Amino acid sequence: MAKATLYGVGTGPGDPELVTRKAWRLIETASVIAYLAPDDGPGFARTIVADAIGDDVCEVIMRVPMRTGRAPAQTIYDEGAATIAAHLDAGRDVVMLCEGDPLFYGSFMYVLARLRDQYPVEIVAGVTSITACAAIQLHPLVARNDTLVVLPAPLPDDALRSRIEMAQGVVIMKLGRHMPRLRALLASMGLAEQTLYVGHASLANEASCRLVDAPDDAPYFSMLLIYKGDDPWITR
Amino acid sequence: MAKATLYGVGTGPGDPELVTRKAWRLIETASVIAYLAPDDGPGFARTIVADAIGDDVCEVIMRVPMRTGRAPAQTIYDEGAATIAAHLDAGRDVVMLCEGDPLFYGSFMYVLARLRDQYPVEIVAGVTSITACAAIQLHPLVARNDTLVVLPAPLPDDALRSRIEMAQGVVIMKLGRHMPRLRALLASMGLAEQTLYVGHASLANEASCRLVDAPDDAPYFSMLLIYKGDDPWITR
Repeated sequence: MAKATLYGVGTGPGDPELVTRKAWRLIETASVIAYLAPDDGPGFARTIVADAIGDDVCEVIMRVPMRTGRAPAQTIYDEGAATIAAHLDAGRDVVMLCEGDPLFYGSFMYVLARLRDQYPVEIVAGVTSITACAAIQLHPLVARNDTLVVLPAPLPDDALRSRIEMAQGVVIMKLGRHMPRLRALLASMGLAEQTLYVGHASLANEASCRLVDAPDDAPYFSMLLIYKGDDPWITR
Repeated sequence: MAKATLYGVGTGPGDPELVTRKAWRLIETASVIAYLAPDDGPGFARTIVADAIGDDVCEVIMRVPMRTGRAPAQTIYDEGAATIAAHLDAGRDVVMLCEGDPLFYGSFMYVLARLRDQYPVEIVAGVTSITACAAIQLHPLVARNDTLVVLPAPLPDDALRSRIEMAQGVVIMKLGRHMPRLRALLASMGLAEQTLYVGHASLANEASCRLVDAPDDAPYFSMLLIYKGDDPWITR
């Protein structure tokens, strides 16, 4: 018997139509799926692809409480990986669902690290929130020989400032409670007027506007976009 | 009559199954498609989604010669945008095909800049080559509060070095003839051993290996991946 395969599939930013054809096919034909979820409810990735999941599918749910420390989460990944391994050992492929892309700030990496040396793994790339947010704003990310930098909002101001300065395309993710500080930082850099905001990209509660019109209590799934390139052919 | 819409749709890195369901649907139902192509042949984006294109579709082809200067390319975008505008004025939606994502180093931006003020535009984000290459190598891009930087290989050594130093996740794109210089730079930074190479991601002629085993004559559609993060839970 050929060894069963662990698939890590990106489910994209939220709209079920922004799932790739390959991910959708793998989910539709899966007999075992796995995903992260909060204490209650099905989890974001599963919600996105709910229409592709069959009725008799076995579901491996890793419940990682929000705002947990690193150690308890690792125990949950250990247990989830062991359950997935048992399915693989029994010859059943496992499709793990990952919002966005599995390798771009994705918790799939914690499962991957535990299983990649023992089992065949295939990863199906997904649409990231970055390109989804740029699409909503019709906003250039990078062109020609521009540099793109992606920054998590919790970084300290000094790190944010120096990394913003050296790039033409800038994305700041995971905004949450950091919005007032980011607003002040970008104003001090003369960038506040040109910064765009997107929250809950591609979902029913999507919000997009300029930073100056954005709320101070942004959700975790939100981002800021800045384009500082000087190509008149795309910015005119 | 409602104004017709210009759609800019990402076709992903090359595998037709890495196209989103939305892009595929829009292409299947399109009466007018538009795309860039070289002097001869259909162009990469059209090749990816060939199976979705109907027989009686009108095709607007912008032939941008390789290695052309900036000015002649702009004339071609002017002419292409005018042809697209004529279709939109006649009430026909136009679906422009863009390999990867339309706003991530995509020439769609040049058409967008010419038409966005006059016509409704909708952009459908696509899977980028970055996440596709990471998937092939099972390679973490970024986790937790890591910074990601995306660098075009033609940048000078000093710019590459300082930007590589300040990020945990590093992607270097558009390798081509720059490989020997990049190899020397990364060796001088002590990063050569851990750098991964991918060419023609998700296509039949895909190549993936460590940088030390990669060819000096890399294609334009190739990249290097480096992860310098120290999270033992994903790098172990």
